[in-house]
Amino acid sequence: MENSRSDFSEWYNEIIELAELTDKRYPIKGMNVWLPYGFSLMRNIDEMIRGKFYGDDFREVMFPALISRGMFEIEFEHIKGFEKELFWVTKGGKESLEDDLAMRPTSEAAMYPMFKLWIRDHVDLPMKIFQIVQVWRYETKHTRPFIRIRDIHFIECHTAHSTYEDAEKQMEIYRNEWNFFTDSLCLPYMEVQRPEWDKFPGAIYTRAFDTIMPSGRTIQIGTIHQYGQNFSKNYDVKYADLDGNAQYVHQTTFGMSERLVAHIISIHGDDKGLVLPPAVAPYQVVIVPIPGSAQNLKSYVDEIAASLGNSGIRFTIDYRENYTPGYKYNHWEMKGVPLRFEIGDREVKNRTVTVAFRTGRKKETIQFTQLENVKNMLHDLSMELKEKAHILLKEALSGKVLGEPEDALRTPILCQDEKCARQLEEKFSLTLMGHIMNYGKEGKCEVCGKDGQTALFSRPY
Amino acid sequence: MENSRSDFSEWYNEIIELAELTDKRYPIKGMNVWLPYGFSLMRNIDEMIRGKFYGDDFREVMFPALISRGMFEIEFEHIKGFEKELFWVTKGGKESLEDDLAMRPTSEAAMYPMFKLWIRDHVDLPMKIFQIVQVWRYETKHTRPFIRIRDIHFIECHTAHSTYEDAEKQMEIYRNEWNFFTDSLCLPYMEVQRPEWDKFPGAIYTRAFDTIMPSGRTIQIGTIHQYGQNFSKNYDVKYADLDGNAQYVHQTTFGMSERLVAHIISIHGDDKGLVLPPAVAPYQVVIVPIPGSAQNLKSYVDEIAASLGNSGIRFTIDYRENYTPGYKYNHWEMKGVPLRFEIGDREVKNRTVTVAFRTGRKKETIQFTQLENVKNMLHDLSMELKEKAHILLKEALSGKVLGEPEDALRTPILCQDEKCARQLEEKFSLTLMGHIMNYGKEGKCEVCGKDGQTALFSRPY
Repeated sequence: MENSRSDFSEWYNEIIELAELTDKRYPIKGMNVWLPYGFSLMRNIDEMIRGKFYGDDFREVMFPALISRGMFEIEFEHIKGFEKELFWVTKGGKESLEDDLAMRPTSEAAMYPMFKLWIRDHVDLPMKIFQIVQVWRYETKHTRPFIRIRDIHFIECHTAHSTYEDAEKQMEIYRNEWNFFTDSLCLPYMEVQRPEWDKFPGAIYTRAFDTIMPSGRTIQIGTIHQYGQNFSKNYDVKYADLDGNAQYVHQTTFGMSERLVAHIISIHGDDKGLVLPPAVAPYQVVIVPIPGSAQNLKSYVDEIAASLGNSGIRFTIDYRENYTPGYKYNHWEMKGVPLRFEIGDREVKNRTVTVAFRTGRKKETIQFTQLENVKNMLHDLSMELKEKAHILLKEALSGKVLGEPEDALRTPILCQDEKCARQLEEKFSLTLMGHIMNYGKEGKCEVCGKDGQTALFSRPY
Repeated sequence: MENSRSDFSEWYNEIIELAELTDKRYPIKGMNVWLPYGFSLMRNIDEMIRGKFYGDDFREVMFPALISRGMFEIEFEHIKGFEKELFWVTKGGKESLEDDLAMRPTSEAAMYPMFKLWIRDHVDLPMKIFQIVQVWRYETKHTRPFIRIRDIHFIECHTAHSTYEDAEKQMEIYRNEWNFFTDSLCLPYMEVQRPEWDKFPGAIYTRAFDTIMPSGRTIQIGTIHQYGQNFSKNYDVKYADLDGNAQYVHQTTFGMSERLVAHIISIHGDDKGLVLPPAVAPYQVVIVPIPGSAQNLKSYVDEIAASLGNSGIRFTIDYRENYTPGYKYNHWEMKGVPLRFEIGDREVKNRTVTVAFRTGRKKETIQFTQLENVKNMLHDLSMELKEKAHILLKEALSGKVLGEPEDALRTPILCQDEKCARQLEEKFSLTLMGHIMNYGKEGKCEVCGKDGQTALFSRPY
């Protein structure tokens, strides 16, 4: 790579291009092509998330991509929040459409007219569905691959419950799921209560999962929302309770996007390129055979491959001619493959495998018969990634400047008063993201001295 | 079910609703919601297809959903073919867009400007990619779930080759893949050479996979296209050959859609409902425990479940209270689950499993220790489905009237002359689909007496 990760913005653009994750030369601004390697990474993330949701009794659906203006306008606050970001379909063939159709920016307005039809009785609740789809937002700000784009890979859960308490329990389930996802992806995060004026349009409250980038800026990589009855009253989603009385359902949502990829690239990467978490890496192991005098190199590599295959390890073998082993090492390091197996004369003769770790840990030579240990090595490597990433977040929270000085984040004690928040935003020239629930402490507001807790001010992506 | 399959159109609508495959009450005409059971079926089909493509060295990508008017207009014939069917995005927020954006109806115009960037040299060829995405078509005809809709689940392969011969070899590979897919799905088909005036816009020739519906009408469920250099010359996709000379690539495509689901429903279904091919059924086995005097019913069912799980069989257990076993039998027959395990006192006592086949074959009682036979039973059931479906196609081809008399198809010998084709279309009041390559024979044209071969005239969906 030409750029060091300390020049984060250049490094980010370079590695996306070098590793062939996405191609931003598509002729429409802010819409990128998922290349095979990037798409494989995203799909592995999708499948990991999908499996967890299935286990938690979510059912998968897929809604149409278009939402009529009429469906949208049922919830005024919601369409207000999105009106500047909607792509509008106004023509079919050469005809003008009677009702303009918006490309979904998220699916509340698509789903809740159907919830009204599907939910009749308390036995229909809870209803828990999710979908993994593209959504579209007419971003007018500067676009950036995986971070701010116009054609977005999106994962959204929607639930309906009998009571607010049940909906709150679902919020807790989301938190557990989020813990599982970020643990798999080795990502650190803050749970931040968005201020009233910055919550999701239509929500009672929004908890965002914000995290740190090497530039010192923060990025939101997941959100959970408590809707209460805000949407159900507008979309008329009711159920008959045990006494037969009609009640509005209580709703929640959980949203994630390809920003997960952005954070994986950014937080784990280094000057050599990507470092991918083993749980979702397209290849967990690359085998580099080193031609020498050993006659049975290929058959030994085949044995290793068979063993990895039986263990369910995702791997590739780099047999390319006209490339040196050194070139291949660099190439697969840049691609972020967690483990590299170097197989040369010595390994063939001794029936061993030399294992190089992408994290830079000292190489290990193991016996062929110890290959089952690869799973443990991948696990250890995950632990390393997790620890390193968490340290970065903690350093940022403790005031260490990661990127440009003007990007530094601030974490003063703040009360609930908007005036105090606005005063500090101006003082820091930063944006209030909200109160930090998982890393914060209680105390007295830095501005007014009233009760408050740790708040996050930052320059978010 | 209320309708018999002999009233095909009513039967089709009823089973889709009863089995909860898709919900057509979505407020936009011709755009339906994939419900969990239907989506699971579609996803299993996707995964089966995906696995085959990976094995055949295709790489998976995902392109943006929008295509600018400028990108489209590069290939005149192509946009002419689709201009009546395009949904046009003309506004972003409240602003009018500079260049109108079409929602992709298929992805040639999206992909080939990128092919121009990606392909430089003969070593870049063949390039073989696929994607599984939604496409959109502004259908003005009567819409019907899975068959003619406006928001379509679509699978598309695109390849580029050095020579026409290499592209022809790819067409042969598609045929093998199609054989594999239809074998898994137990579907019969005809390979039909579309007439010149009905080929894909931009193709040199189009081979369609047409098949028969119980109504006697035909339906196209897959197509492969030879583009030659038609697109590459327009989109300027060139490579340097061995001598360093710039040459236009030769291209092919392969397209399939959720019409595969339409055909699975229609060809295998019966008066009780769906009959799903084991390879893609959401559940291959349903276990119905029948409460009786046996104390250890649940633990025995758990043992069976563990055994099925270990064999990778997809199954569900119906423990619902307040429903009789008979009700459950009907329910899961309607849902098309291939095998039903009935577990009552006798089975618990003798450690046996009574297996009922959805195809109506005589029930079998097997020992618990023979459970590994379930895979063979599923295989046998697939063979039954295949045979029954092929008989239906052969009967239709031999002149048997399946649905309404006016739906009958005709298979006369026809030459290549458009005049003869049009004359027969008028005579039969049917549409010429083309010459049948796999079921046809050579002979003399029924109209002019010149050399010809078997042609298919039908009323296609």
